Amino acid sequence: MPIPMPTRDDKFSFGLWTIGYNGADPFGGPTRPPLDVVHAVEKLSELGAYGLTFHDDDLFAFGSTDAERQTQIDRLKGALADTGLIVPMVTTNLFSPPVFKDGGFTSNDRQVRRFALRKVLRNLDLAAELGAKTFVMWGGREGAEYDAAKDIRAALERYREAVNLLGQYVTDKGYDIRFAIEPKPNEPRGDILLPTVGHALAFIDSLERPELVGLNPEVGHEQMAGLNFAAGIAQALYHDKLFHIDLNGQRGIKYDQDLVFGHGDLHNAFALVDLLENGGPDGGQAYTGPRHFDYKPSRTEDESGVWDSAAANMRMYLLLKERAQAFRADPEVQEALAASRVAELRTTTLAEGESYDDLLADRSAFENFDPSQYFGGKGFGFVRLQQLASEHLMGAR
Amino acid sequence: MPIPMPTRDDKFSFGLWTIGYNGADPFGGPTRPPLDVVHAVEKLSELGAYGLTFHDDDLFAFGSTDAERQTQIDRLKGALADTGLIVPMVTTNLFSPPVFKDGGFTSNDRQVRRFALRKVLRNLDLAAELGAKTFVMWGGREGAEYDAAKDIRAALERYREAVNLLGQYVTDKGYDIRFAIEPKPNEPRGDILLPTVGHALAFIDSLERPELVGLNPEVGHEQMAGLNFAAGIAQALYHDKLFHIDLNGQRGIKYDQDLVFGHGDLHNAFALVDLLENGGPDGGQAYTGPRHFDYKPSRTEDESGVWDSAAANMRMYLLLKERAQAFRADPEVQEALAASRVAELRTTTLAEGESYDDLLADRSAFENFDPSQYFGGKGFGFVRLQQLASEHLMGAR
Amino acid sequence: MPIPMPTRDDKFSFGLWTIGYNGADPFGGPTRPPLDVVHAVEKLSELGAYGLTFHDDDLFAFGSTDAERQTQIDRLKGALADTGLIVPMVTTNLFSPPVFKDGGFTSNDRQVRRFALRKVLRNLDLAAELGAKTFVMWGGREGAEYDAAKDIRAALERYREAVNLLGQYVTDKGYDIRFAIEPKPNEPRGDILLPTVGHALAFIDSLERPELVGLNPEVGHEQMAGLNFAAGIAQALYHDKLFHIDLNGQRGIKYDQDLVFGHGDLHNAFALVDLLENGGPDGGQAYTGPRHFDYKPSRTEDESGVWDSAAANMRMYLLLKERAQAFRADPEVQEALAASRVAELRTTTLAEGESYDDLLADRSAFENFDPSQYFGGKGFGFVRLQQLASEHLMGAR
Amino acid sequence: MPIPMPTRDDKFSFGLWTIGYNGADPFGGPTRPPLDVVHAVEKLSELGAYGLTFHDDDLFAFGSTDAERQTQIDRLKGALADTGLIVPMVTTNLFSPPVFKDGGFTSNDRQVRRFALRKVLRNLDLAAELGAKTFVMWGGREGAEYDAAKDIRAALERYREAVNLLGQYVTDKGYDIRFAIEPKPNEPRGDILLPTVGHALAFIDSLERPELVGLNPEVGHEQMAGLNFAAGIAQALYHDKLFHIDLNGQRGIKYDQDLVFGHGDLHNAFALVDLLENGGPDGGQAYTGPRHFDYKPSRTEDESGVWDSAAANMRMYLLLKERAQAFRADPEVQEALAASRVAELRTTTLAEGESYDDLLADRSAFENFDPSQYFGGKGFGFVRLQQLASEHLMGAR
Repeated sequence: MPIPMPTRDDKFSFGLWTIGYNGADPFGGPTRPPLDVVHAVEKLSELGAYGLTFHDDDLFAFGSTDAERQTQIDRLKGALADTGLIVPMVTTNLFSPPVFKDGGFTSNDRQVRRFALRKVLRNLDLAAELGAKTFVMWGGREGAEYDAAKDIRAALERYREAVNLLGQYVTDKGYDIRFAIEPKPNEPRGDILLPTVGHALAFIDSLERPELVGLNPEVGHEQMAGLNFAAGIAQALYHDKLFHIDLNGQRGIKYDQDLVFGHGDLHNAFALVDLLENGGPDGGQAYTGPRHFDYKPSRTEDESGVWDSAAANMRMYLLLKERAQAFRADPEVQEALAASRVAELRTTTLAEGESYDDLLADRSAFENFDPSQYFGGKGFGFVRLQQLASEHLMGAR
Repeated sequence: MPIPMPTRDDKFSFGLWTIGYNGADPFGGPTRPPLDVVHAVEKLSELGAYGLTFHDDDLFAFGSTDAERQTQIDRLKGALADTGLIVPMVTTNLFSPPVFKDGGFTSNDRQVRRFALRKVLRNLDLAAELGAKTFVMWGGREGAEYDAAKDIRAALERYREAVNLLGQYVTDKGYDIRFAIEPKPNEPRGDILLPTVGHALAFIDSLERPELVGLNPEVGHEQMAGLNFAAGIAQALYHDKLFHIDLNGQRGIKYDQDLVFGHGDLHNAFALVDLLENGGPDGGQAYTGPRHFDYKPSRTEDESGVWDSAAANMRMYLLLKERAQAFRADPEVQEALAASRVAELRTTTLAEGESYDDLLADRSAFENFDPSQYFGGKGFGFVRLQQLASEHLMGAR
Repeated sequence: MPIPMPTRDDKFSFGLWTIGYNGADPFGGPTRPPLDVVHAVEKLSELGAYGLTFHDDDLFAFGSTDAERQTQIDRLKGALADTGLIVPMVTTNLFSPPVFKDGGFTSNDRQVRRFALRKVLRNLDLAAELGAKTFVMWGGREGAEYDAAKDIRAALERYREAVNLLGQYVTDKGYDIRFAIEPKPNEPRGDILLPTVGHALAFIDSLERPELVGLNPEVGHEQMAGLNFAAGIAQALYHDKLFHIDLNGQRGIKYDQDLVFGHGDLHNAFALVDLLENGGPDGGQAYTGPRHFDYKPSRTEDESGVWDSAAANMRMYLLLKERAQAFRADPEVQEALAASRVAELRTTTLAEGESYDDLLADRSAFENFDPSQYFGGKGFGFVRLQQLASEHLMGAR
Repeated sequence: MPIPMPTRDDKFSFGLWTIGYNGADPFGGPTRPPLDVVHAVEKLSELGAYGLTFHDDDLFAFGSTDAERQTQIDRLKGALADTGLIVPMVTTNLFSPPVFKDGGFTSNDRQVRRFALRKVLRNLDLAAELGAKTFVMWGGREGAEYDAAKDIRAALERYREAVNLLGQYVTDKGYDIRFAIEPKPNEPRGDILLPTVGHALAFIDSLERPELVGLNPEVGHEQMAGLNFAAGIAQALYHDKLFHIDLNGQRGIKYDQDLVFGHGDLHNAFALVDLLENGGPDGGQAYTGPRHFDYKPSRTEDESGVWDSAAANMRMYLLLKERAQAFRADPEVQEALAASRVAELRTTTLAEGESYDDLLADRSAFENFDPSQYFGGKGFGFVRLQQLASEHLMGAR
């Protein structure tokens, strides 16, 4: 079976910090030299990606002079022009330098919060200049190790103040940019503010311009809380808030692994791609934005492993897409879905125009309804369905 | 040091299913006989509780005749009258009988959904009759083991349909009742809809009458996802959605343990009580509703262990309350909080009336700000604060 | 691609409690009626299994009279004779009845411990009578919720006393039976004695007859502790202690799910089957015993779902076996394994006959060895290997 | 209540890498400058510690010349002489430099394994020279992210080859040194070899000189697998293998937090100290070795926070020791322990001289034993015991 090759239409994008990850971790230093941005763009282009994303500090080191910064921006622009790659998303590093050791927008230190805002505003201008449509905010340092150290409600209020201000700024400037919050439960802080897709959705509803702000959920981040990523994405879609997505792999509840997409929970990766590609109202795409990989090439690898891993991400996505399409097209699956009454859940519980009084008057709904038929009968056939999904995932049908 | 005794003013309540838990678990049957509701009310009253709560099926078995049901209601009412206990909250069992094996409001089977609504409407009438102010909805069976088996967006839409209808019903009837959704990540389903405080908050914002619906978070449920319960409660308070609370103990990410409150993560229990009792705007209570225990007396215990464990819940709460008050009153703690700049987070990042243009023009915020002072300096003193909290928790100061 | 059908040679066996699981869980009662043992044997035979296993109390209820017990044994024997199925393993229920609420071999109550031993001895006689070669011991109630409640060293000593006595018994009786301990970290107890493969292996080494005792590891039990099951099995094989195996599926760290094998962590299931089937010294089987499924048909299913799920277990195993064989046979995989130096780890670090003095004198090993070549070079190619494994798992090569 | 101050008799020791942790983590660089070893020794001495431990590369950077190395050793020796501190333990860094990116003793690359052995042998000489009695081996890089990448049985065999060689070396040299293996389940590798106390114990039993090798369990490492640390230590003591211990704090299953001891799971910390201090045969110490803290001062702290956190570790230990002693001395606790039959577990299940035939003949053990008395009766009183423990922990009795 020919394995499909990625094309620009697949909208695969990579963070500069992903392929550029040097291998440093809590127990060891770098195993790879820095990756130049021009080389990165060229290689991604060759491999079939369509976009590069970055944090400000990925492109030009924290504390760069204006000239150094501009040089790097120009080099990036040149590479983009040469290859046709775009920058669909930009984000700001508010977590690495010591100044952000207690966070950026929610540091207990007000001077730090002001500095953070300035850093983000400057980076927003750059994002607009480069044509990025999404501005991601991962608040990895917004959190605490100790409960008494952080007034969570105050932190939410400061986070809200910051996002409101940014929303006003892009509105006033006329930037065609939307914000995407990236939740994470922990690491590097003991507990992080807005730990899951749900918490971030709730926060967004409290903003002045909620329409400008959505989510950038990451596979591994939700799975670090033991949550079902595909289900979380479904809820994000339900609330129209899937603005961007970070694809990678995670093997259970542990440190943030950032493996290649599909090298973690494979069943859930299948469900996710099925949702993104076939979960639209007409069975088409439920999400049309970038398929962004936020992963780390394993520290054991040299540069060839970096590009092998980049390619592996796209390959896994395309394979899963193919499998999910075959799954949906299989008549036996369609029959099994019907037997499991999956689509019946789309039917309203009350009939059109039916009131609760009507329902209360419907003796077939309660008085004459026999719940005992569900004992030893009326099985849902869910295991059979899961087996069909597993066989499609494994290419065995 | 005298250990305080509970009084009605402490607003301690217990679920009938908690003290009535018979010890059945996935690997063994009951170890205790059923607990009569009248006896339960009398004992709780003796121990100092103020309220009893229940699922419909706790009081009268699923499938009871109207007469059997009424007998039990009358017996409960008699016991309440005799003791002065109240019923602050009522909830509906949509998870135990086989008919709900795929859930109630979101079963794939529409007949089941209609039956579930009828069961809840009937129970709402009873709740109103008994004067309950809160109606809890724990959707423990609303979920799935397999991704293909459940259309999550349809499930959310059906859940929304149900809650909207219930909101209309209590509004029309003039019931003084608010709803409280209880999130849980998993067990008994592989993944449950609205798995965390955050997901439920986001869902509530999508309702027709969001003001009628809040949360009933449970300590162990959030901790089963590795989330910080006190932080989750702080976000619930931030959104004004802490309508009720389920206190218990859990030792990490595993099956739902329902231990006595404080017998799980003790640091977090301390932070929680500190938040509830001292987190109000003036340093007073941030939450004034029932302190409801949703726990299980261990299966190893006989009836004396049941009442010992009930008493232990209240004792732990009162001890933690005392410790938290001493913590807040300690001048050394106050000095440490100031050194950690905890209160500084309540100051807005922009000055009153300051615009982003003003911020951009403030060279002290960026151009002249020296981030390097945070390297080797400007420590936050969080560990010292945590040590002070630990010593207060341990009664060592 | 034709999906292989199971045969007796595949040595698939099922616990009577697995297909017989009635759906009861901590939040709901049975959804299916009891399954008769004769019917169970007939259906398993039809589906291609070769063995049935059981706890004493699965076959005849706890407290049965001798006559009731014998009737059931005779009915089982008849069904075995009719179908050709065998009973490769028997085990004892020391966890369901109230008497075992604090465990069996390690209950704090000595009378209970004596009763437990008697129950096991009686069941050993039955196991021998039925020709079972393995006697599994899952000590699910041997544990505690509270640290002060259980003297762990005393518990280990009592467990050791029990196993030593059983070892003496089978030796004296001449029974051709070996014991297999099944570890589990928690549930139904807060913490269980011998929580992992490792802890049980260490315990076995302390026994009087360690050669008689090995392991019965279960996929989900190790994964409930976040441990890599295939790696644990490899260590069990390393110590020659894989006496039996429990195959099922688990989706991360949560309650014990007992899903169909392969419906949990699919990558690890692939690695496991690869190890069992291709991990022998010559590339053949590393384990030749029963492939025993210890799973639960989901509570949502009726009887047809029970048999679908039983079939799904075997199908997944056979599919994974086929995939693993293709993986090992693929020249590109062999080249990648070589590039990753996987086999090089089998070469001793010191040459044959080399002493530490020789090593200390070897300047190429240290003084002249250049560790800097591992920075930016000498990548291990592990991601490429994982991608090849993933593609084979997905049937894409 | 006066808080006790640490003294040398308490045997508190700290790793140089703990107080010297510069704050680097996966998402940010250092927040503190390097800590000089002489300053470290002086400060620890002031605070009441008795020992300093280190990895070779903590004292002199990887790749140091012999002269640089010797300078640092001499500076350390001078500081020890000046303060009276000792070096109870030494360990080797086989995980930070790129050369160890696939591990040391079990790297797939044989040259790396030989280099690792040389590095360890050299460090053993230094350990002996400094009078260290324990040599810790934490194999943090011995592991894999991908199942196909590592032959686990070969890895165990290479690990065994290495430890056997080291055992021979110290024996031949007459060094008074024992080895202590430190298990960890994951991080920095996806899965680490010898992931738990149990796995390491089992491995030790396979060695040529098992008597030379024991464990150095770390609180957080076992808790990262959701395991009960105190229970694991009890099993290590049962097998006489608690050679050293790493004390710190961890808040559940997540990345390795290395918090201050007691700032994680406080109940389990209490149980641990109770076991170490009061778990001996006569109620005295069950462990007499160093109380070694392997923690990280939070990244938010400056140097004053470093020393506050070092002091906090010792303070928590001493407080817990005091609480545990009061717990054991309390007559109400003693009565509750008796009611829970905790000590009864130390009584053998069979009477002295009783055979299984005697047991089989004892009708009171089975035929006349009434298991039904455990339904609704014969409660174990465990919750009451846990409440008493909680109240002692909180200083409330």
